[in-house]
Amino acid sequence: MEYIARMDLLREVLAKEDISAMIIPSNDPHFGEYVPEYYKTIKWLTGFTAEAATLVITQTGAALWTDSRFFVQAESQLQGTGVELMKLKVEGTPTISQWLKENLQEGDIVAMDEELFSYQEYTAMVDDLSPLIPSLIEDPFDSIWEDRPPLTFNPVRYLDESVTGEGVASKHSRLVEKLSGELPFAYIITALDEICWLCNIRGTDIEYNPLVLSYCVVNSENIHLFLREEVVPSDVVSKLSSEGVIFHPYEEIGRFLRNLPKDCVRIYSSGKITAKNFLASMENIYQNGPFAPFIPDPMTGGVLSNMKAQKNSVEIEGFKRAYIEDAKAQIKFFAWIRENIDNGITEHQAALKLIEFRSECPDYLGESFHPIIAFGSNGAIVHYEPTAENSSIIGKNGFLLIDTGAQYTYGTTDTTRTLALGELTAEQKDDFTAVLKGMIDLSIAKFNKGTRGAQLDILARGPIFKRGKLYMHGTSHGIGHALCVHEGPQSVRMEENSVILKPGMVLSNEPAVYIEGEYGIRIENTIVVTPWQTNQFAEFYQFETITALPINTDAVNFENLDSIEKAWLEDYNAKCATLLK
Amino acid sequence: MEYIARMDLLREVLAKEDISAMIIPSNDPHFGEYVPEYYKTIKWLTGFTAEAATLVITQTGAALWTDSRFFVQAESQLQGTGVELMKLKVEGTPTISQWLKENLQEGDIVAMDEELFSYQEYTAMVDDLSPLIPSLIEDPFDSIWEDRPPLTFNPVRYLDESVTGEGVASKHSRLVEKLSGELPFAYIITALDEICWLCNIRGTDIEYNPLVLSYCVVNSENIHLFLREEVVPSDVVSKLSSEGVIFHPYEEIGRFLRNLPKDCVRIYSSGKITAKNFLASMENIYQNGPFAPFIPDPMTGGVLSNMKAQKNSVEIEGFKRAYIEDAKAQIKFFAWIRENIDNGITEHQAALKLIEFRSECPDYLGESFHPIIAFGSNGAIVHYEPTAENSSIIGKNGFLLIDTGAQYTYGTTDTTRTLALGELTAEQKDDFTAVLKGMIDLSIAKFNKGTRGAQLDILARGPIFKRGKLYMHGTSHGIGHALCVHEGPQSVRMEENSVILKPGMVLSNEPAVYIEGEYGIRIENTIVVTPWQTNQFAEFYQFETITALPINTDAVNFENLDSIEKAWLEDYNAKCATLLK
Repeated sequence: MEYIARMDLLREVLAKEDISAMIIPSNDPHFGEYVPEYYKTIKWLTGFTAEAATLVITQTGAALWTDSRFFVQAESQLQGTGVELMKLKVEGTPTISQWLKENLQEGDIVAMDEELFSYQEYTAMVDDLSPLIPSLIEDPFDSIWEDRPPLTFNPVRYLDESVTGEGVASKHSRLVEKLSGELPFAYIITALDEICWLCNIRGTDIEYNPLVLSYCVVNSENIHLFLREEVVPSDVVSKLSSEGVIFHPYEEIGRFLRNLPKDCVRIYSSGKITAKNFLASMENIYQNGPFAPFIPDPMTGGVLSNMKAQKNSVEIEGFKRAYIEDAKAQIKFFAWIRENIDNGITEHQAALKLIEFRSECPDYLGESFHPIIAFGSNGAIVHYEPTAENSSIIGKNGFLLIDTGAQYTYGTTDTTRTLALGELTAEQKDDFTAVLKGMIDLSIAKFNKGTRGAQLDILARGPIFKRGKLYMHGTSHGIGHALCVHEGPQSVRMEENSVILKPGMVLSNEPAVYIEGEYGIRIENTIVVTPWQTNQFAEFYQFETITALPINTDAVNFENLDSIEKAWLEDYNAKCATLLK
Repeated sequence: MEYIARMDLLREVLAKEDISAMIIPSNDPHFGEYVPEYYKTIKWLTGFTAEAATLVITQTGAALWTDSRFFVQAESQLQGTGVELMKLKVEGTPTISQWLKENLQEGDIVAMDEELFSYQEYTAMVDDLSPLIPSLIEDPFDSIWEDRPPLTFNPVRYLDESVTGEGVASKHSRLVEKLSGELPFAYIITALDEICWLCNIRGTDIEYNPLVLSYCVVNSENIHLFLREEVVPSDVVSKLSSEGVIFHPYEEIGRFLRNLPKDCVRIYSSGKITAKNFLASMENIYQNGPFAPFIPDPMTGGVLSNMKAQKNSVEIEGFKRAYIEDAKAQIKFFAWIRENIDNGITEHQAALKLIEFRSECPDYLGESFHPIIAFGSNGAIVHYEPTAENSSIIGKNGFLLIDTGAQYTYGTTDTTRTLALGELTAEQKDDFTAVLKGMIDLSIAKFNKGTRGAQLDILARGPIFKRGKLYMHGTSHGIGHALCVHEGPQSVRMEENSVILKPGMVLSNEPAVYIEGEYGIRIENTIVVTPWQTNQFAEFYQFETITALPINTDAVNFENLDSIEKAWLEDYNAKCATLLK
């Protein structure tokens, strides 16, 4: 079997360096949600394709840790590879370090790729692994992985202020103002969406996300941008240079960090940095005596990430335009579904059709994530992604859950509608109505400045709780502007997140009900935090809904909505109709 | 002026020890909400009577830190004393250590009473004060405070299982089970309500709270109880001794802690302990080499505190009985108010009348806190406490806010009703209805196991937010069983509190609206977390309301309630009527 052979190739490489085991995570050096094929070493080694896993290989065995979303997939894909499945959050599952200590001897070396572990993860692992010896190594795959897909460095687009609402020099100066203390600083940015937002650039280096493979180091004077300069059109180079951006090759980030002046405070944006880059950034200090401290990002969730999350009015107008374009396509799509339902279309065919309708808009750039089109019991699988090989026929009776989004030049969308097909049971209608009720109740919330997402979560979840049901995911994630469909730092979920909601933050609003083996219902709009009123009591905020896609009422049990909810639904659908005229 | 003379007496005592300043907090060694007169040294020194303050005295000056609730009172009471008022949380107010560093010289000694600072507060202050020299001292007031009220050690009552639902031996063994690790331990309890709950005893040593001045140290074998043994009836001594309690004099706690075996792990219940007792507990380890560690209480909020908070069915039945008795008295009281309104009764007279009605019940022991009976604009002062000297006449038009509670042998009550007197404006009715709506919406919540109070707060606060208003206090505090009316560790408030809500936890439910200078509205019921259902989704809880006092509907704008809220109100008032028959 090819996978066993590949693992043995890796074992040989490691053995030459006296390495007893290697821990292989599934992320890349930028710690984003999507990872270039180049970094998909777990898939190459084992055939396991899910996005979240950690593989550990020793000279005699291998084990893979993943979470409950992927247990079934892992059991099937790992068959015959000899890789042991370790179920995260299941009683009795050892941690990676426990397992390694059971399988290795004191003093054995455990390798970790210096570019795939954040410095914090690495130091935590060092503590856990003792008495084993941790060792940071370079990527060992180049020599053994034939036809390894290269990293792609595709052309970069520059977004002007008609799209971003703010130039790079202005963003830079606002960032500097928030960071400046008494000492000079270097703000080191690893996350690609933060860099793209700061520099008003977009690319296509990562699937579904208009990102540019890059690093960034900001000081009071300049933005040092590390990317493949050849992919930047010369007018963009001129434009950005005039706004204080200095270009460096992508591969030069390490050398630049090693040469950071001793007396400059190192600040790591959002706290994210690879072990390799962290150590490089501290080298001058380690070698020439301590001088400047390094400090965590001074704001909960990150200074830059918070700036990015608070959209300006131009960005919000772009979002609204994108939602209108997207609604036009989806309305055609829903009609197409209903017209073709008798022909036995598959979920995957439907997804392709939706893309076709979206493509009619000249500003459409692509999907913002893998379309989730899930009929019946597939709707209850939260991470269901129909493919050409694996897709069900859409039936005539039941719920069809459609959670998709698109990238437009002026905005990113993320919308879920659950179509009611044929006959529904009273239970199904009551579930649909509870989900809708939760979605509305969060939409109409008023709250004071300082409110955190966890305080509002019950508004969306409460009506579902009252049916004795519960969805296990968050209610709201942030959405990037013409960027990643999932972004931080804000959220609305059961778990505490100390980030407060601020005007301009864009969030999904997506309560749900999942009945395993039967159906899934999710309704997702996008909402923006906006000022409501300031008085002697407080500064108050509310949400504005910016999705423009009507909500079908076939499955609504109106008896279960109160008068305010009914009025909201009527107004919302009327507003959408006006917008789509 | 007597206060200046008293402060000078203290300065003389301090000067003899070369002490430049003393920091005097307003708590006692047990860190409870109410403090015996013996410890009210700030009141004796300055005339300031509010419960939360810190006084700092130097050889030449004095300053007092307090929060916004007490600014007006402090300005009036401190007049002529020369004590500078330091307004907490007001921009420009120095911290105590900043102020001391400005007023003293490097190396000057700053004294703190070793029994009034927790070890954590003391060490934090040590860090802050540098380069001043902190020094723990004994209470210096005995020699200068003539007629200092003594500590009271009143007779102790034992509550049998018909009231507590669980004997001491059983509580001890459950506690031991939760604390036992591999090493022997000593669980050191400073909080009086925790001791009273564990030992099933009650006293009258603290105002409004049926507490016994005591300390406790628990190990696997025994409960060592430190109190004045002479106040314990001999049958109670025998009973408790048979359940594993070993009696020691109150004053022996220090010696006992100093002699704790070296190899026993010190655990401080709820993390609370005086600097003196902490240092005593570590003396054997400091002197004879490190051996056992000391650890914080292993459970968020404290193991014992969590056990105490989850009431058993006998305790809950006791609460219900108490609420029925209390409702009977309050109904008579409300009628009396309406009958006598034309006679010009004061809030204080009304409070005495309510106590008179409550005293008709033979099981009534006293109030559970200072009655708040506040007419009109007084209702907007959250900490308003009418006294014989300071009390307004109850007018004919407006809201009368009545927040009172009582101690019965089988339970503690805390209830607020806002009576609508005469004519109200539409705005007043809408505010009243919003408060009621919030109270109801929290009452009918359903939620899953693991929910924290901050997740539910918006249910009570939301309807008030929707009117652009906000109350700044929490929505819910815990209530002790025949114990303190305020108890932890659970709460429902805007701030994150990681304690999860568990069945048997009793909470207030008290949203409010305050219009400064005009009126205050608060409606407060008591609710208990109870199991609802367990299914494939989760274990779900709900609240049961145990207050038995109807809610007057004169001020309700029924248009603003939805059908579920209306039904709840009707059912609740009907249920109360049945209970009170």
